Amino acid sequence: MSVVNIPRRTVLVALLATAASARLASRGALAQGVDPLPSWADGPARQSILDFVAAVTREGAPDFVPASQRIATFDNDGTLWCEQPMYVQLAFAMDRVKALAPSHPEWHERQPFKAVLDNDMAALAQAGEKGLVELVMATHAGMTTGEFARIATDWIRAARHPRFKRPYTELVYRPMLEVLAFLRQSGFKTFIVSGGGVEFMRPWTEPVYGIPPEQVIGSSIRTEFRIENGQPELVRLPQIDFIDDGPGKPVGINGHIGRRPIAAFGNSDGDLQMLQWATRWPGKRLGLLVHHTDAEREYAYDRTSHFGRLDKALDAAAASRWTVASMKDDWKKIFDFQ
Amino acid sequence: MSVVNIPRRTVLVALLATAASARLASRGALAQGVDPLPSWADGPARQSILDFVAAVTREGAPDFVPASQRIATFDNDGTLWCEQPMYVQLAFAMDRVKALAPSHPEWHERQPFKAVLDNDMAALAQAGEKGLVELVMATHAGMTTGEFARIATDWIRAARHPRFKRPYTELVYRPMLEVLAFLRQSGFKTFIVSGGGVEFMRPWTEPVYGIPPEQVIGSSIRTEFRIENGQPELVRLPQIDFIDDGPGKPVGINGHIGRRPIAAFGNSDGDLQMLQWATRWPGKRLGLLVHHTDAEREYAYDRTSHFGRLDKALDAAAASRWTVASMKDDWKKIFDFQ
Repeated sequence: MSVVNIPRRTVLVALLATAASARLASRGALAQGVDPLPSWADGPARQSILDFVAAVTREGAPDFVPASQRIATFDNDGTLWCEQPMYVQLAFAMDRVKALAPSHPEWHERQPFKAVLDNDMAALAQAGEKGLVELVMATHAGMTTGEFARIATDWIRAARHPRFKRPYTELVYRPMLEVLAFLRQSGFKTFIVSGGGVEFMRPWTEPVYGIPPEQVIGSSIRTEFRIENGQPELVRLPQIDFIDDGPGKPVGINGHIGRRPIAAFGNSDGDLQMLQWATRWPGKRLGLLVHHTDAEREYAYDRTSHFGRLDKALDAAAASRWTVASMKDDWKKIFDFQ
Repeated sequence: MSVVNIPRRTVLVALLATAASARLASRGALAQGVDPLPSWADGPARQSILDFVAAVTREGAPDFVPASQRIATFDNDGTLWCEQPMYVQLAFAMDRVKALAPSHPEWHERQPFKAVLDNDMAALAQAGEKGLVELVMATHAGMTTGEFARIATDWIRAARHPRFKRPYTELVYRPMLEVLAFLRQSGFKTFIVSGGGVEFMRPWTEPVYGIPPEQVIGSSIRTEFRIENGQPELVRLPQIDFIDDGPGKPVGINGHIGRRPIAAFGNSDGDLQMLQWATRWPGKRLGLLVHHTDAEREYAYDRTSHFGRLDKALDAAAASRWTVASMKDDWKKIFDFQ
């Protein structure tokens, strides 16, 4: 992070601190016998979380796991915050294309940029993964890591969700914040393992989720160390470094953490291998899928969704005894503002 | 980590636990007014560490740094443990070549394997970096991450240093263990940032240094997720993923931690950019180089050494106001057994 970024980051942290402390106020609740999951309706999903935590934290019990090995990994998009009508980072990339377009007149004639400038989502979808990669390279590279953090921070503070008209950082799921706090309170270390860009998430995960940057794993582009005017900088290059999705998630977990999680939380086929990696080894393990079943309070989608498709992983859930949490039935509350 | 590895790892942890608790016994020393750096001789090196920690931990003072941003990074080879007469991991690779040679008769005629089997260090040096990479690929790939952890763990428990005739995990520097403990006690998070293989270090860094696997950054080869007999595995491929050395160290730090360290400790030119990255930004920062000046108790080497060359970084130290700690003069004790 470059020096210039620090004050802005400080501002963001300060801005979000109030919300964060409210969210994390449930810390210590356990000790006082207060319900650690008040936004979860009674039912098998809620019970599976309580049973799992009880089993691995009870010293001397057969499934006890020492605190140092209590690793829990969480997908971000669709698991901790809203991923509809599109991934937040794609909204960011599209806004960046629009902001940078005056310096790129050729974009008006060239896909996928033309699709973005025309707000033509069908054409954008047609550009496929190759088109998305082009968008990311054009908007996420060519600056220092500090400059990018500042750009991402400014955007996330200013941007609003098209339906809920609120900052994206308010579109985080209250029940999942409770799970994060409950696990940490029970000696767990909580990590984000997301297909999203690691440097897009890190500026705000600590105030919003209580997860520090060093516990965020994500996709990345290459960076290069340079000394510029006597100052060391890391410059972001337009080359993919790592895609932290699907079978990449266990790879990213192993590369960053070096321990196998005992609990994993996801919501889509991109989380299938992470849940397999976390749950298919001896001992009490927890795999949980958030099932988006509530079109009224959030969105309802699964097997055919463009973003966050849940198909193979839903089939695997039954055989693997993973918990499937239905937003509509298992969550008394979704967002804090509702 | 595969299931089969757990019991062995547990054994290692148990074996090393006694040593570790002794080493970490100085925890809490600060609170009781006990010297946190008893193995450091009075002098500017010791004083620079004390001054730095005092400056960044004094609330309200101009150089105060909140605990969450107190990140310190440590090179491993030559900074935390002995790297002569060769990197420990190279000794491991050579032993693996010898162990695997019966299944590879062609190695007796092919460099760099022939050099290893003949104990011909001159020929091995001639094979250069390309030869070393070949050795690593032949000995570190082609198994699951769990199998590799078991192999590395077994080796590190059995291997002995050629001169000191002790396990390599006893060849760690007592003064640096004190620095690690002192920093953690002062609210720092301590990380290893090593050119060595990350999966070679992780099985033993926690008992030996008190640094958990998720705070170890190193070089890596690619891994691939597979389901074998219904069990998810990560298979190690003979392809380099990342070289965490020189300009790669800031890249690795940013990729894993996402915060800029405020203190960095190294001993060679491979640490130059890490120290630049950690110290060249506003505020009180600490860069420290261990200078190997004690042929009697350890080794004496710097500008012309094959392993751990300290040349450019030594020149940079004066201009950058880094601390240069002379083993001979600044360390009252080097190893616990001396």
